Amino acid sequence: MSDGGTTVLTVSYDGGPFAGFARQPGQVTVQGRLEESLAIALRREVVTSCAGRTDSGVHALGQVVSFPSAPSDVPNRDLLRSLNALAGKGIAVVEARSAPRRFDARHSAVAREYRYRLVTGAAPPLFLHDYAWWVKDTLDLGAMREAGAELIGQHDFRSFCVAGSAEGKRTVRTIDLLDIEPANEMGEHCIVVRIVGRSFLHSMVRIVVGSLVQVARGRRSVRSVAEALETCERAAAGPTAPPHGLTLWHVTYPEELWL
Amino acid sequence: MSDGGTTVLTVSYDGGPFAGFARQPGQVTVQGRLEESLAIALRREVVTSCAGRTDSGVHALGQVVSFPSAPSDVPNRDLLRSLNALAGKGIAVVEARSAPRRFDARHSAVAREYRYRLVTGAAPPLFLHDYAWWVKDTLDLGAMREAGAELIGQHDFRSFCVAGSAEGKRTVRTIDLLDIEPANEMGEHCIVVRIVGRSFLHSMVRIVVGSLVQVARGRRSVRSVAEALETCERAAAGPTAPPHGLTLWHVTYPEELWL
Repeated sequence: MSDGGTTVLTVSYDGGPFAGFARQPGQVTVQGRLEESLAIALRREVVTSCAGRTDSGVHALGQVVSFPSAPSDVPNRDLLRSLNALAGKGIAVVEARSAPRRFDARHSAVAREYRYRLVTGAAPPLFLHDYAWWVKDTLDLGAMREAGAELIGQHDFRSFCVAGSAEGKRTVRTIDLLDIEPANEMGEHCIVVRIVGRSFLHSMVRIVVGSLVQVARGRRSVRSVAEALETCERAAAGPTAPPHGLTLWHVTYPEELWL
Repeated sequence: MSDGGTTVLTVSYDGGPFAGFARQPGQVTVQGRLEESLAIALRREVVTSCAGRTDSGVHALGQVVSFPSAPSDVPNRDLLRSLNALAGKGIAVVEARSAPRRFDARHSAVAREYRYRLVTGAAPPLFLHDYAWWVKDTLDLGAMREAGAELIGQHDFRSFCVAGSAEGKRTVRTIDLLDIEPANEMGEHCIVVRIVGRSFLHSMVRIVVGSLVQVARGRRSVRSVAEALETCERAAAGPTAPPHGLTLWHVTYPEELWL
């Protein structure tokens, strides 16, 4: 249908069964499964670009995946139905739309929103079991918010990425929004950490959450988080929060790119 | 700890892996798993009573289970921890508290709230996949609400229970509340049907939902639901909605029973 443009998919997935988003030989990945399904649905090889290369175990509600359209492609409506029939358990293609050729899921994104769920208390989460980090201690949300506020804005986040992953690379990033709010999902109480920025370093969101949870547990001072920014050493920040609490929630593109 | 009283557990479970709540020889059931765990935790045989004997596949957020306490029982706090360690995947014991001897989870309940989730549209639910009925058609919520309003109050619900299950039994029940609202859970849009009453007949909630969904799809008239009440014949009502959309949400007891 679309000619010379880009096809853009919005995709939800449960990170649990996958070895991450990115295609890897011999591994079950979201990109691998999507590209196999696209090859069948469109009868041609398709190489996709994505907004966030989520790690193994990380979920997505609104991952965005794009690929160059071809004149022989079926209409988006039919593509949506085929992909949902082919992709199998754990992946749902929520939307398929067309954009101009210059649209690229990775490079055109102007904001990425991640959400991290925490559950506290003596009883384990049930419906949120695979979608929240169960921290049994009581959390001091006031201290957590105070420490989080120090991370908002433009900083060198070298301390907050996988050691060695940023060697020789630019590690300055901007966090536009970081908030921490109690929520109720599936009837269960949880705490949601919401983080928005244009882009993030490898594991940056999980290291930020891991550090803030240490503050909330009283195991690290509020000040230590801002101090960790300055040292530019991975060891100065907290541990990496487990992947299953994290969801790539939403990706934003400039309005004019959809025209 | 407690002497001569009743121990009351609030229990959440994922109905998917279980052959319903009620103990059955050779089947994995929630009651079976709980009673086995109680036998280990309390070192004695325990027979439980429950607020709602949910069918196979039906979930619970706030199922209530009670049993007579014994002087040798461990404190509730320890019991909670042991049960969560013993009960295994799919069951979470949210609370353990003590009540007077006259408390019985089944007979003392004054209100039971069930919620049924529906997801509409071309894309399948992902995080709600196992917790919502995916109805691909567009639903007319106005018509659905109009038909639902006819069921509120005291009626003979013989048409709305499993054929033969109520033979010779009283089938008059009262629906105190029935509302239908759009909701967002885990980031996914859904429609929640909430039904509250003192007690329900076998599969009554699912047959009510199945009938209302037929109205919302335009396959049955709004009037036909009220008419089905009058005929007192199962065939006059709609199909039974699938179990995985249903959750026993909350059970209410008289305040004075906790004293």
